[in-house]
Amino acid sequence: MKTRILVRLKPGVLDPQGRAVHHSLDHLGFDGVEDVRIGRMIEMDLADGTSRETIDAMCRQLLANMVIEDYAIEILDDAGNPVGEPA
Amino acid sequence: MKTRILVRLKPGVLDPQGRAVHHSLDHLGFDGVEDVRIGRMIEMDLADGTSRETIDAMCRQLLANMVIEDYAIEILDDAGNPVGEPA
Repeated sequence: MKTRILVRLKPGVLDPQGRAVHHSLDHLGFDGVEDVRIGRMIEMDLADGTSRETIDAMCRQLLANMVIEDYAIEILDDAGNPVGEPA
Repeated sequence: MKTRILVRLKPGVLDPQGRAVHHSLDHLGFDGVEDVRIGRMIEMDLADGTSRETIDAMCRQLLANMVIEDYAIEILDDAGNPVGEPA
């Protein structure tokens, strides 16, 4: 079961990496960039039927820092496209 | 225009960060994890109508290392859900 976890900083948390990228895009001449935020993507191949609770536990214990980050869980089809959330 | 860039290592490129996370998940007692790959997510707020070519140029020049990484571009709706690729 292909699973994708998207980890992003909570709203309001300063993102110095995003600011640096924003600054670099401006410097390279790309206009119209209003905001940049950087996060992590974790793609896992899990045993079929792995529960939402188990994946939540992985996120809380290891994959995300719940103090400053939020996460979203997506289940992917074989082509890598999101088909929903876990049961 | 909310845009999400997903940057992942090309298939076959060694992912030591993914291996470390995989090892840690095993160690924490999570069974059934078969593979873990770590990538980056860049979420940008761009001017409406920014072309696919412009976003491609951002990726090639700054956001992705084309030697070892691939990227995918998603346009998001206001709720942050993918609604397709840029025109």
